[in-house]
Amino acid sequence: MTADGLLLDAMVRAIVVSQAAAGVSTPNPPVGAVIVGAHGEIIAAGHTQAAGGAHAEVVALRAAGAAARGATAVVTLEPCNHTGRTGPCTRALIDAGIARVVYAVGDPNPRAAGGADALRAAGVEVVSGIGAAEAADGPLRGWLHRQRTGRPVVIAKIAASLDGRVAAPDGTSRWITGAAARQDAHALRGVLDAIIVGTGTVLTDDPALTARHSDGSLFDHQPTRVVLGRRTISASATVCDGAAPTRIVDSRDPADALAAVPDALMVLVEGGPTLIGAFLAAGLVDEVHAYLAPVFLGAGANAVDDPAVTTLAQAHRFAVADVTALGDDVRLRLRRRSAE
Amino acid sequence: MTADGLLLDAMVRAIVVSQAAAGVSTPNPPVGAVIVGAHGEIIAAGHTQAAGGAHAEVVALRAAGAAARGATAVVTLEPCNHTGRTGPCTRALIDAGIARVVYAVGDPNPRAAGGADALRAAGVEVVSGIGAAEAADGPLRGWLHRQRTGRPVVIAKIAASLDGRVAAPDGTSRWITGAAARQDAHALRGVLDAIIVGTGTVLTDDPALTARHSDGSLFDHQPTRVVLGRRTISASATVCDGAAPTRIVDSRDPADALAAVPDALMVLVEGGPTLIGAFLAAGLVDEVHAYLAPVFLGAGANAVDDPAVTTLAQAHRFAVADVTALGDDVRLRLRRRSAE
Repeated sequence: MTADGLLLDAMVRAIVVSQAAAGVSTPNPPVGAVIVGAHGEIIAAGHTQAAGGAHAEVVALRAAGAAARGATAVVTLEPCNHTGRTGPCTRALIDAGIARVVYAVGDPNPRAAGGADALRAAGVEVVSGIGAAEAADGPLRGWLHRQRTGRPVVIAKIAASLDGRVAAPDGTSRWITGAAARQDAHALRGVLDAIIVGTGTVLTDDPALTARHSDGSLFDHQPTRVVLGRRTISASATVCDGAAPTRIVDSRDPADALAAVPDALMVLVEGGPTLIGAFLAAGLVDEVHAYLAPVFLGAGANAVDDPAVTTLAQAHRFAVADVTALGDDVRLRLRRRSAE
Repeated sequence: MTADGLLLDAMVRAIVVSQAAAGVSTPNPPVGAVIVGAHGEIIAAGHTQAAGGAHAEVVALRAAGAAARGATAVVTLEPCNHTGRTGPCTRALIDAGIARVVYAVGDPNPRAAGGADALRAAGVEVVSGIGAAEAADGPLRGWLHRQRTGRPVVIAKIAASLDGRVAAPDGTSRWITGAAARQDAHALRGVLDAIIVGTGTVLTDDPALTARHSDGSLFDHQPTRVVLGRRTISASATVCDGAAPTRIVDSRDPADALAAVPDALMVLVEGGPTLIGAFLAAGLVDEVHAYLAPVFLGAGANAVDDPAVTTLAQAHRFAVADVTALGDDVRLRLRRRSAE
């Protein structure tokens, strides 16, 4: 094992640790940090806490205690150099006696950047870029996307028959996909910042839109429920039950739904078909999670309505990122074709 | 390597060899045979020739010549014991001095069965069942299906957007799926006995329905083109060009299309949507090959029309057999859920 191999192992560990912060750390990036001893042993690990709480580096340093002196800190994002609700991480690393900082992704945020320079100025060795692609495409993706574009990563979820129907002609739709696909979708909700639906979905299905375990109990983190549309939602609708924050947005413009959750890093558009069509038409869908049941219905509600396509050249084209079997169904994850 | 392992290796080889007979040997089963020496070495191999030609065992025995004496014959199907257009294979094996016959699948055809008994009566050692599942689910599937049910295996092909559309709203449809998916579909045509389309498809698209290489040249084997429907097809339609046999069936009943190719072992229903719906409604679809492009259209012609589904409980349900990436697209192969 080379020294670089040990550092990459530690970075992978930091990325895995950071996944626990997904959805929770918003608006801060979900960062992971591990403190590594002289022989590559992991002394301590931590991830960003909820907003206003400690950053990943500070959590890991506190866990390491005196053992941090002379050790290496491996962090998924360049340590911040500014005082927000918490002090700068660079200061905490220097004060703890960290000898070397290894980070994956440089901080593009001008207010927070300069961490590497500050560390070097204090005599700390700095290595950057280890595991950068994995970290940037993993837990940090939503935050980096917002830094770059000013909006969250938007995932559209579809659960349909293989011929693109989300209900049979008589409206029956429970369940086209099976339990494994539904549980996967709940796990996704549990790491996101918001779920967006149309008023039609609320009026028709009265969904809870909470992230639930298979026994029905709630995940610790619940995304904000955003209801977009011009129709009136009753105060007795389940989405207004207080189990999670709710925003009612009296508009048909997908951009208004995103504006209602200005800090969100990753959001899920769950439907119905008109809402998904509107997000596609607006060019706002970065990723699609399509849960497909090996079933044919022939007619019934479409998975997607009115996406502003008249001719094939206008089709909304994606790239298949991965295909996974989930019980009897398959999940295709698609990514936007154009470079972000 | 155990002796059984060597026999299974030889059987896998016989199955692979038999694939070259798929579509060609009809109405005979596409059988493969290898002659194996005392140390497991493969002396010769052969597969069933076109109807009226030699069976697999005879081809392999001729290739082996005198080396067949004392050797083992490994065959995917129980050697036939009856005189049809060719003499019984059992006689050829005995006359060649074969000491042992290993076969995968017993012959369910009462006219041809009894091969194992005849061989044993002549002092030949007989082993059965080696690789039986692989052979029965592979090249022999269509033939076994016809023996059991009196009809061929019916594969429905769909090439659609991820939301189940085979054309954009303005009718443009070339191409939703890419070159790799189209070439895969041509390769499938090249091993089948018939392609069934509706008159509407012929009138709208004027397809050739031939099996072509990517350079446009024809495969050696061409399936029979079956056109089902009540509308009149012009004699100048490309399907009438003589490049392959053609049957025009003046009916809307899917069973009549199958009756038009009474020897067929494997057939492909290529559409349009109404025809695929009719085959689904009739319970005649054994397998679906769905080529899905990661594209959304929102409207346009459906992949499947009128499959006699009103409520979700009536949905035509399949099981996913495999998923394969083909260029930018994915191919899902589905099998009928009920045991055949």
